[in-house]
Amino acid sequence: MTAFNDLMAYQRQTSALGQIAGRLGWDQETVMPRGAAPQRAEEMAAIEAVLHARRSDPRVAEWLESAYATSEADKAQLREIRREYDRAVKVPSDLATAIARVTSEAQGKWAQARANEDVAAFLPVLEEVVALKREEGAALAQGGDIYDAMVEDYEPYTTGAQIAEIFDQMRPRLVTLRAAVLDRPEPAALTGRFDELIQMRLSQKLAVAFGYDLNNGRVDKAVHPFSSGSGLDVRITTRTSETDPFNCFYSTIHEVGHAAYEQGIDPDYLLTPLGRGVSMGVHESQSRIYENQLGRSRAFTGWLFDQMKEAFGDFGIADADAFYGTVNRVHSGYIRTEADEVQYNLHIMLRFDLERALMAGDLQVSDLEAAWNDRFAADFGYAVDKPSNGCLQDVHWSVGLFGYFPTYSLGNVYAGCLNQALRKAVPDLDSQLAAGDSSGATGWLRENVQQFGGLHAPRENIQRASGVEPGPEALLTYLENKFGALYGL
Amino acid sequence: MTAFNDLMAYQRQTSALGQIAGRLGWDQETVMPRGAAPQRAEEMAAIEAVLHARRSDPRVAEWLESAYATSEADKAQLREIRREYDRAVKVPSDLATAIARVTSEAQGKWAQARANEDVAAFLPVLEEVVALKREEGAALAQGGDIYDAMVEDYEPYTTGAQIAEIFDQMRPRLVTLRAAVLDRPEPAALTGRFDELIQMRLSQKLAVAFGYDLNNGRVDKAVHPFSSGSGLDVRITTRTSETDPFNCFYSTIHEVGHAAYEQGIDPDYLLTPLGRGVSMGVHESQSRIYENQLGRSRAFTGWLFDQMKEAFGDFGIADADAFYGTVNRVHSGYIRTEADEVQYNLHIMLRFDLERALMAGDLQVSDLEAAWNDRFAADFGYAVDKPSNGCLQDVHWSVGLFGYFPTYSLGNVYAGCLNQALRKAVPDLDSQLAAGDSSGATGWLRENVQQFGGLHAPRENIQRASGVEPGPEALLTYLENKFGALYGL
Repeated sequence: MTAFNDLMAYQRQTSALGQIAGRLGWDQETVMPRGAAPQRAEEMAAIEAVLHARRSDPRVAEWLESAYATSEADKAQLREIRREYDRAVKVPSDLATAIARVTSEAQGKWAQARANEDVAAFLPVLEEVVALKREEGAALAQGGDIYDAMVEDYEPYTTGAQIAEIFDQMRPRLVTLRAAVLDRPEPAALTGRFDELIQMRLSQKLAVAFGYDLNNGRVDKAVHPFSSGSGLDVRITTRTSETDPFNCFYSTIHEVGHAAYEQGIDPDYLLTPLGRGVSMGVHESQSRIYENQLGRSRAFTGWLFDQMKEAFGDFGIADADAFYGTVNRVHSGYIRTEADEVQYNLHIMLRFDLERALMAGDLQVSDLEAAWNDRFAADFGYAVDKPSNGCLQDVHWSVGLFGYFPTYSLGNVYAGCLNQALRKAVPDLDSQLAAGDSSGATGWLRENVQQFGGLHAPRENIQRASGVEPGPEALLTYLENKFGALYGL
Repeated sequence: MTAFNDLMAYQRQTSALGQIAGRLGWDQETVMPRGAAPQRAEEMAAIEAVLHARRSDPRVAEWLESAYATSEADKAQLREIRREYDRAVKVPSDLATAIARVTSEAQGKWAQARANEDVAAFLPVLEEVVALKREEGAALAQGGDIYDAMVEDYEPYTTGAQIAEIFDQMRPRLVTLRAAVLDRPEPAALTGRFDELIQMRLSQKLAVAFGYDLNNGRVDKAVHPFSSGSGLDVRITTRTSETDPFNCFYSTIHEVGHAAYEQGIDPDYLLTPLGRGVSMGVHESQSRIYENQLGRSRAFTGWLFDQMKEAFGDFGIADADAFYGTVNRVHSGYIRTEADEVQYNLHIMLRFDLERALMAGDLQVSDLEAAWNDRFAADFGYAVDKPSNGCLQDVHWSVGLFGYFPTYSLGNVYAGCLNQALRKAVPDLDSQLAAGDSSGATGWLRENVQQFGGLHAPRENIQRASGVEPGPEALLTYLENKFGALYGL
């Protein structure tokens, strides 16, 4: 057992250092003085260098050679350590350095190009990013599919072809649903102004209602909401807008989903490879089911309506039924991050197909804008009006995040499967949610998904919990039923 | 130049990692969720292990062997790197581990013993701490004086004998001054309640008035005020008490002194061994001169009086002269951290003599309480009433901090020398301070002390700035004049 124990002690330290790097990221987005940025860049580079050196340390290979494990969990630990080590040593360090340099430059150029509506100014550096990422993908894939190797970073044990199969089933039904819904009259939108301090206070209440443990976390404001950390210190951020309290509330609930996953993992896995969410897709399944299937349900919005009336007084929505319509209002738009449940996945599929083609060499960067605009018009029924509403809207590609986008929709698909099983397992879920009590739902999710951390592969995790092979049917049925009823289709 | 450049690049990374460890400490005292403590302990241990390994890395010795420098600054960099490396490799790692383990245990036992007024419960573990620290001191001293080797960690290039010489001159005059002052009627104390939010707001204003740059720092609340970080990210904390706003204001000004030092260092030294305060004593000279010679001056308290009236309305002090007396009120007490300018150094000298004797083997731990109480009665004129007011009041010895206490009084001595020179260099200082403008003072301190960081040895730094060999005369004269006038001696 010596090799196994030594390896695990080493991994614990590496995980602890990884947590520190994450904490620095939190600090940067919440409390860091503005002028500290250049120093922080050096601090981040220093800890990342330490982490990279540890992950590719030859001792890990030696330990892996002689370590053996008997329990299921210990075997899974070795599996994950091996996967991370193999990944770390496959990419030459000058390639990694080049990617870090070019993506850092690309982010600045992307922000400027977006501000100036100038796609041409971004394409040369994006070309470099794509070339370097393809090189990295080839190093990782070692003869296999480049895009699969990239997906592996975010959604291990899952291929581009598996994702494409799911997405191809979803697309026609979502295009149809979207068109049908937008053909009907829109529910009332929220109007008026909502005090931001009261939003933050109600946010905390919502977080606690969804099982977020403030003894091991905290809620702060940031420009972009996020969840950060694992184990005993999992912090979330949200944002406020005076005219759009839903942005604050549903960002909070979404991030609580991520945080609840990290807080819910078996404490035995603390600071080990199993002690974090197993994939971005399963992570997103938690944030999405909290936000949408639970948080935007008729039952829960009834409770939220009363909370908002208590906090803000009459805010111009007649009753809980009308409020449910307002919360779930489907509205034409261009921007992924502002999209509703009906349209969100169409945004993702567009990006998935384009980035997969870019990585395969089937789409040239110079043709990206035209491809984006054609696809958008086909799925949404109207033309992109400007690049910041089109192919320049997301930061991801400038950062080199290829293979990441599909995990958002995989999360929705997984959430659909989990919701179906949850409804069967907790038959009086709606009466609980109507009282602002999500403990039945969150308890089931902790028991069936969250506690396992990295123990099972993502799809296996969802299959064990939901009892079905993960596929889009449950999500599509849920969406068609919910929005069919809401819009009288 | 390759060896020098490689070494400096390595040092920059080490400094950046050191900043991260410091940031974790800040986080722990200000924003960390309570339940995160056990995980944070592992995170701190992990980054400390990385830092220790880097500081004692054999490559540092190799680089030092072939590196050469021509400029004064680069030579000083090599001098400091060599000093840190020599220190890191002299202490066997199992001794360092044993000290970490025992002092961690000792802190808990100390807190409990203090709560229970039970000296006997603390002495056995203190005995272990003393034995291990003496062992460490012997490893560091390599035949030299053990206590000198410990002082070196906090006040490099300074010996116990040099400190004793200074303190021996101070003690009789301070004992006399103390007795004379306490023989006179006390000025009015502050009464009433002071809103804590308003205290924090005025605190920020005071911080800025003393030149603290909020673009590279921030002010938060913590149980114990402290300053944290170097370079572009130097944060301070303060505390509030509804009945004692001076605690908040003067803690803030004190910490701003520490922070201004770190913020004032030549930016060329960022993330290098010279890019931080050169010693605890010089650090304390900055915090003390800001807090006392400037912040508690008649001129500045006149401005503060108006600020407080504006913020809190009439608070029962008749005028600025009376307010000056209230701020500088000398009052009998047992506790070092609550002591005024007249009595503070007496507390330190007591600790210095006792800990030096402990390290020399001239005082046994079993005799510590009696020695403390005898000395206290001799210098303060009355008996210690309970251990929490006596030898159990400070955490330092349980943490293994021997050689640290004298730097507080060295700071006062240095502040006395600097104040004398500053008054000559900026003749209209008082009229500036009376208008809440400390820029003349802080500009002079930045120019003559702060900018140099670790370039000069502590005593040299003070001598260059003040034009005199650092000694207690300036401080004693300042105290005798100030309190002589205030108390009509």
